Amino acid sequence: MGKRAVVLASGGVDSTTCMAIAVSEGYEVYALSFDYGQRHRHELRCAANAAERMGAAGHKVIEVDLRAFGGSSLTDEMEVPKDTPEAEIGAEIPSTYVPARNTVFLSLALAWAEVLGAEDIFIGVNALDYSGYPDCRPEYIAAFEKMANLATKTGVEGTAVIRIRTPLIQMSKADIIRKGIELGVDFARTHSCYDPDEQGRSCGRCDSCLLRLKGFRDAGIEDPAPYS
Amino acid sequence: MGKRAVVLASGGVDSTTCMAIAVSEGYEVYALSFDYGQRHRHELRCAANAAERMGAAGHKVIEVDLRAFGGSSLTDEMEVPKDTPEAEIGAEIPSTYVPARNTVFLSLALAWAEVLGAEDIFIGVNALDYSGYPDCRPEYIAAFEKMANLATKTGVEGTAVIRIRTPLIQMSKADIIRKGIELGVDFARTHSCYDPDEQGRSCGRCDSCLLRLKGFRDAGIEDPAPYS
Repeated sequence: MGKRAVVLASGGVDSTTCMAIAVSEGYEVYALSFDYGQRHRHELRCAANAAERMGAAGHKVIEVDLRAFGGSSLTDEMEVPKDTPEAEIGAEIPSTYVPARNTVFLSLALAWAEVLGAEDIFIGVNALDYSGYPDCRPEYIAAFEKMANLATKTGVEGTAVIRIRTPLIQMSKADIIRKGIELGVDFARTHSCYDPDEQGRSCGRCDSCLLRLKGFRDAGIEDPAPYS
Repeated sequence: MGKRAVVLASGGVDSTTCMAIAVSEGYEVYALSFDYGQRHRHELRCAANAAERMGAAGHKVIEVDLRAFGGSSLTDEMEVPKDTPEAEIGAEIPSTYVPARNTVFLSLALAWAEVLGAEDIFIGVNALDYSGYPDCRPEYIAAFEKMANLATKTGVEGTAVIRIRTPLIQMSKADIIRKGIELGVDFARTHSCYDPDEQGRSCGRCDSCLLRLKGFRDAGIEDPAPYS
């Protein structure tokens, strides 16, 4: 069998480019998405589309309802912040931070990786043009990787070493977009908005939209996604 | 507000004693259980009973279907091992190991802890009379704790330090049972069996039953739970 990787797939710019990178490196890709009670399901359709387009060997959507805990404007009845001045994005941890989200997602990716015999887990985190989430930083990823190798049967038996792969972590959003285009990503079918309308069109005003729009502007490319 | 703790509650001897210890230390207890596709739901009734009996401030049951990944006789259509000779229990990692289970459970506990402002997460893992699972060992717990403090808003802002509390980790099963009785645990309403019958009676032959029965025998106490 070819070398396998689990790729976290949220349907956005970063995770879709990350999936394209895993494919370009020759991995047999198993895409993993989460229905965690986020405000909209449009991102799950985008993730499924990316997995199909890139010939992923599998795509699972796991339900785990993080609304049970709340604590975030993405899963609670709070307003998503809009029109944050550019310099302030990422300066503080915003209300869109979902407690322990990447830890929950990576843990479930680890479970699947172990069953698949995959050594690599790809996650499209970015510590440069990002929203200031603690679970996107390199020191967090390194700590998760260390824990993962102590958590698992393969780690204990020494038969496989789990690697958390973060190819985008030090890239600017513009570079991520350029890389995605080079690898044939269809950005019209990616979704970044925290608060889209009922037709799945992006608001253009939440932090995620603002970071995305700035990335396309910096890359000198027009964002093909629909805005309301 | 009093000091809060999230306590993982599986309804078994260890987690129920662990909950009693958290209560005895004066914590406001938030019990957390998982409906993860295990073979039976009887353990969830036992966990709910323990949380109610001990006056927990809250009890949540989170659904996360680990059957989606398989890879374990607890979540797959495999036979649960029976009548393992005592010396062999824990010598190898058995088929009842569920890939990354404690990592998934602790990650979700971390999410709730962060929302609650709880610094302590109790888990009744035991590295002495246990089944050889990698995610029950002290080095794994230490790595998870380190990761947890890098993962969270509170960790980054330095406002709280997450501790993974494992009061049972170096205790024998007999000592755990004695401690539980001292703290008023009703062991008749705890459940350990991997493969109970339809009335919730234990098989007495799986590794978990064998470890439990040996613990009661060593403690010189009769196990009050029903066996088929």
